Amino acid sequence: MPRADSLSSTFAALADPTRRAMLARLALGEMSVNELAKPFKMSGPAVSKHLKVLERAGLITRGRAAQRRPCRLAPAGLKGVDDWLAGYRRLWTERLDRLDDYLSALQAKSGQAKPGKAAAPQFPKPPRSTKG
Amino acid sequence: MPRADSLSSTFAALADPTRRAMLARLALGEMSVNELAKPFKMSGPAVSKHLKVLERAGLITRGRAAQRRPCRLAPAGLKGVDDWLAGYRRLWTERLDRLDDYLSALQAKSGQAKPGKAAAPQFPKPPRSTKG
Repeated sequence: MPRADSLSSTFAALADPTRRAMLARLALGEMSVNELAKPFKMSGPAVSKHLKVLERAGLITRGRAAQRRPCRLAPAGLKGVDDWLAGYRRLWTERLDRLDDYLSALQAKSGQAKPGKAAAPQFPKPPRSTKG
Repeated sequence: MPRADSLSSTFAALADPTRRAMLARLALGEMSVNELAKPFKMSGPAVSKHLKVLERAGLITRGRAAQRRPCRLAPAGLKGVDDWLAGYRRLWTERLDRLDDYLSALQAKSGQAKPGKAAAPQFPKPPRSTKG
């Protein structure tokens, strides 16, 4: 099944906060369009348009029950994004590790204890001296 | 630093195969715009436009050296996508595990050996009987 550029459609579908909020709701379980649309102050056609974008991107599926047609998250669509990201994950991990090493070296010099790794902010600002 | 919807800009920037290919090139190391643009058959202004989108989305940075201004991947921009995905990762893992259990059960019934987990297709079609 050659899908020319499904990854681009997936990313385009995710480039909207309302659509991401819809996915977050569907992560709780399948629901009808009305249920899904409840927290969003928008017209029926606007909701339908968002759902069509998500469906075409393979991020949701719609049931076939004539009246209800419940929406369901299709997590496999997100797995494509995860697979794409995998190649880059190493890069930011390495950079954060280098930053961690750098901070350790700095703190060893100044005699400070290094904060626990879990608590370390991602991009710490240079330490400021606190006022007494 | 409140950035209203940086995740949407990141996803929008990634929704283009040329821009993703540019990131893949930059994953090899920083390079000048000319070097970066080599494999892409497009005009200078078109390349610049793509780079601007990537830069605004925080996915690349540009050096300040007046002549060269080398482009560099900014993997932290992708980490935002990874963090967003983390909440959903559990969902597709669970579904694939359930599918795996289902296949194991089917194959136990039919007396077939279960294929290795690594080789299992994501969404296998129901098995068809092969013609003798």
